[in-house]
Amino acid sequence: MSHPEALLAVGTAVNSDRVLERIDELALIGADPAGGTTRIAFSAEERLALDLVTGWLEQADLAPAYDEYGNLFASTDGNTPEVATSVSGSHLDTVPNGGRLDGALGVVAAIEAVEAMRAVAALPERPLEVVVWRCEEPVRFSQGKVGSLLFTNQLTVDDLAPIGEPRFDIRAALAGEARTPRRDVSRSIASCLELHIEQGRRLDMAGCPIGVVTAIAAPIRLRVSFEGRADHSGATPMDDRLDALCAAAELILAVEDAGRRESEAESVATSGDLTCRPGTINVVPGEAEVLVDVRGIDLESMDRVVANIRASAERIASRRRLSSKVTVLSRGIPTVLDNSVVNTLREVVRTLGCEPLLLPSGAGHDAQCLAGFADVGMIFAPSVDGLSHCPEEFTHPEDIIAAVRALSAGWLALASA
Amino acid sequence: MSHPEALLAVGTAVNSDRVLERIDELALIGADPAGGTTRIAFSAEERLALDLVTGWLEQADLAPAYDEYGNLFASTDGNTPEVATSVSGSHLDTVPNGGRLDGALGVVAAIEAVEAMRAVAALPERPLEVVVWRCEEPVRFSQGKVGSLLFTNQLTVDDLAPIGEPRFDIRAALAGEARTPRRDVSRSIASCLELHIEQGRRLDMAGCPIGVVTAIAAPIRLRVSFEGRADHSGATPMDDRLDALCAAAELILAVEDAGRRESEAESVATSGDLTCRPGTINVVPGEAEVLVDVRGIDLESMDRVVANIRASAERIASRRRLSSKVTVLSRGIPTVLDNSVVNTLREVVRTLGCEPLLLPSGAGHDAQCLAGFADVGMIFAPSVDGLSHCPEEFTHPEDIIAAVRALSAGWLALASA
Repeated sequence: MSHPEALLAVGTAVNSDRVLERIDELALIGADPAGGTTRIAFSAEERLALDLVTGWLEQADLAPAYDEYGNLFASTDGNTPEVATSVSGSHLDTVPNGGRLDGALGVVAAIEAVEAMRAVAALPERPLEVVVWRCEEPVRFSQGKVGSLLFTNQLTVDDLAPIGEPRFDIRAALAGEARTPRRDVSRSIASCLELHIEQGRRLDMAGCPIGVVTAIAAPIRLRVSFEGRADHSGATPMDDRLDALCAAAELILAVEDAGRRESEAESVATSGDLTCRPGTINVVPGEAEVLVDVRGIDLESMDRVVANIRASAERIASRRRLSSKVTVLSRGIPTVLDNSVVNTLREVVRTLGCEPLLLPSGAGHDAQCLAGFADVGMIFAPSVDGLSHCPEEFTHPEDIIAAVRALSAGWLALASA
Repeated sequence: MSHPEALLAVGTAVNSDRVLERIDELALIGADPAGGTTRIAFSAEERLALDLVTGWLEQADLAPAYDEYGNLFASTDGNTPEVATSVSGSHLDTVPNGGRLDGALGVVAAIEAVEAMRAVAALPERPLEVVVWRCEEPVRFSQGKVGSLLFTNQLTVDDLAPIGEPRFDIRAALAGEARTPRRDVSRSIASCLELHIEQGRRLDMAGCPIGVVTAIAAPIRLRVSFEGRADHSGATPMDDRLDALCAAAELILAVEDAGRRESEAESVATSGDLTCRPGTINVVPGEAEVLVDVRGIDLESMDRVVANIRASAERIASRRRLSSKVTVLSRGIPTVLDNSVVNTLREVVRTLGCEPLLLPSGAGHDAQCLAGFADVGMIFAPSVDGLSHCPEEFTHPEDIIAAVRALSAGWLALASA
């Protein structure tokens, strides 16, 4: 643990106005007329946000460098491959009509932390690296955390399954960027700390401004498709239909029920999108497809949810004389964070004068991808009403600042450990 | 009634090969790699099909002229406004991945009928007009039969509600065509006969090659929307969600149930499409919208189905603490065809050596829009397995020819009445 005075000094050195102004400035990039911010990974908007952040990094005397997947690193020591760094950061991409803090807060906070440590001459001996991961949201692909998983070789570009048409071509997107200089691939990472909004209601309901994360839920993602028969909607009697949309409707309710049955184990299940074909008002839909997200911190419970959904799909298809198919798009493993990091962060937050809430994360985050490679910690700021991935996503300014202070002091402690 | 010999002669004069070849030729325009034919109204494909048909009309010595809505007329007498005509035809637009006969058969048959009557010098005194109506399928707008409804002043361009984004601009589409010469708007229509495939299973199940239509079902079309709250799919407990897609799923099953309850009155109800927002795998959908088609020949029964759906939407929304909205997009009135026309057509078909099945039409057709303005009749050809609006739509070639013969003789009888 760093000296309590140093931790307090770093917290106090955080420039509140700059933090809030930068969050505002980022929210303008991709501000959507339909509400919120739409800054899809590898879109012009996300790239503009990267450019803006690159300017802030240079102001903070941090040297930007890129890996081959477009992830942006900026270290306090240039690019010295033989010395392991301590990283902090998050992502700049959003879901469509997302909020202004998801991702952006963690990036702004990491830059501010370096500025605060430098201001009070408390930079640790270990070099710090601010990181911006690419493509954290599962909008382009059936899975998220793409940049951090590619970086840690837990995924290859060939594994990626694009969502929707036309199919997103990440190779072409990366070739179109070709950012330099390159971060040395051999440089290792000793520790990683990410600040993120909770995206749930626990901190808000507890009235606690700072959370320390103990475990990170992982998603199992499924595509459930039904194939029946397209028929004229006016000329086909009800008993004579093979309606794929009705089958999908039953499946959606079965997914909801499967999630409810595992609530005690903290698993949830969501149908996030449905597509039916031909999708015309006067045709009985012949095909339908549902995208399902099963999330939890207990893999056995998650597997029970998936088994339940599989059985439902088969039962529905059989009773309706349709065919069904369940495809596993991705299967994540929940991450339990290291106890010593959790304890360090709790002590730091206490030093800053607050008793943090220890809680699991329902959402996945880039930092978890570094677990196993580095000491990983996460700090949460409260989400008012738990809202996230929507224009109403909000954290009170004083809670934002408290969280950035905790991140700054926590990072100093973790990098000094 | 025309003389039986003349009716038989006209039937025999039908050129079977030409009819089948023309249907094949039309099916190539808009042949979809995903199966079937996609020839959306006012698309390049539908316009190509119109050009092909215009060539056939000119070969048949018929003079093409257009109304201001792009409907194509071609008469045996040029364009003599003071003499009322007898019309026959159908449409060339299709649903996405539709069949090769829906619409196309009625157009090819009407041209062939004129050729057959001319071949045996049996053209009636009353001028005949082949017609191609535009935009019969409800793909561009929330309703179909757009061309025939505009022509009969039962609809104005301002009434049209485009489906989907970007919004289809029919004024721009029509201005882009600007086809000439113009058909005289004052020319009236004495009678109208349309040949169409049944799009249901009745003729096929009865083993009868020709149907005479007694009544035409009409659709009431609804948009049911739910508004809940978009939430992070991993961080929002099941009990804390306002999931609009789950509400829509319940509604789809309620629509199916409402249709089943009115099966005896021959009403049906279909959810043809569903859209949810944001439609991303890791967000609980905050908004969802279902397009519903209620169809029948008994308006009271149809109204009961609609009332049932409205009550379901309210009940679902109330239990799930969401808001719901039911919008009536269009409200059609079922059409009972004139008894004397039905009898004339039945006698003609008997003269040709077949006992027709008298049956209602589950689907709507352009011809019904002329009821009240002209004597209207319809002839049906069997749809194998009742399939339509799909690539598998099929009628046996011998049944196609029998139907074209019935249309030719029936049109002669109707125009001579």
